[in-house]
Amino acid sequence: MPRIKQNDKRDRLVEAADKLIYEKTFHTTTLADIAKEADVPLGNVYYYFKTKDAIMEAVIQKRAQEWQNLFSAWEQLTNPKERLVALINHTVGQADMMAQFGCVVGSLCQELGKQGGTISAGAAKLMHDIVKWAEKQFKALGKENENSGRLAEYLVSGIQGMTLLTLTFKEPGCMDRQRINLENWLASV
Amino acid sequence: MPRIKQNDKRDRLVEAADKLIYEKTFHTTTLADIAKEADVPLGNVYYYFKTKDAIMEAVIQKRAQEWQNLFSAWEQLTNPKERLVALINHTVGQADMMAQFGCVVGSLCQELGKQGGTISAGAAKLMHDIVKWAEKQFKALGKENENSGRLAEYLVSGIQGMTLLTLTFKEPGCMDRQRINLENWLASV
Repeated sequence: MPRIKQNDKRDRLVEAADKLIYEKTFHTTTLADIAKEADVPLGNVYYYFKTKDAIMEAVIQKRAQEWQNLFSAWEQLTNPKERLVALINHTVGQADMMAQFGCVVGSLCQELGKQGGTISAGAAKLMHDIVKWAEKQFKALGKENENSGRLAEYLVSGIQGMTLLTLTFKEPGCMDRQRINLENWLASV
Repeated sequence: MPRIKQNDKRDRLVEAADKLIYEKTFHTTTLADIAKEADVPLGNVYYYFKTKDAIMEAVIQKRAQEWQNLFSAWEQLTNPKERLVALINHTVGQADMMAQFGCVVGSLCQELGKQGGTISAGAAKLMHDIVKWAEKQFKALGKENENSGRLAEYLVSGIQGMTLLTLTFKEPGCMDRQRINLENWLASV
């Protein structure tokens, strides 16, 4: 077998942390859990990350990049409304996972928001990026600055609320009903 | 000083647990924290509650009763739309607290929803009660059964989404903007 590259180990740790924190919450995930999931000896973890917060920051960075990639892909769509529908559908497409674990960004913001600090601000930045991207689309639709912000907040609130209800009631069907609500609303804007 | 009654100690433990779990999350709150906050010796806690889950169940029961009291109060309003506005305003009225710690019900459902089990179901029951109460109001407004459920989900999603954004951005003003959105929507239903 080829020798595992250093970067590969780091990536595996970040992947493992991302998965476990999403599935179990940040506070119930230990560095030992992450090491085990990544198949990296616990002693090695400290070479890459001194603390669980440091891994959390790397997870947030990875997620932020994934969102930027999604935004770029959606911006290929000509109509800004279609781009916003793509955001809604992206969430709805993960309904089964949402019913098990909720939204990655929403659950991080909810859990870390209570404590504040660096990783809480990092999670908030993820949500901020989504709201700002939606706001850009509403501006492209000709909405004034102030209204664009309010509309973006409303859309993201609706998406976040629906993922929470889906998780709470363990019912992926919530997402589909809410998708129709939000798409109808979007059509009327 | 009068001798503290047994029930008083139990109540103080439930109050303390409610406060700490709301402010810090369930998983980061220990029985020792709760005992200290309630000013009850840790050894005594086990007389009332064998586990943290058992205290959590008592907290949920207390919260469920508080919600029933709110529903009863709001049902004094003649117009079902006014009752729904009262639900929105109840949340908006706690904007400063929401910006610090989020919504009690929402954050419990988010955190416990990932793990499932008895206390997760208890938290879901709180959310269920709110959705069902809203549904009853939409029915009283003459909406059909199916639509009433969908409208109630939409309203509660909107409220939950707004509390999450308020917590995430530490900005109580989010609540006021979303209140206007939801009241406009409600007027159009």
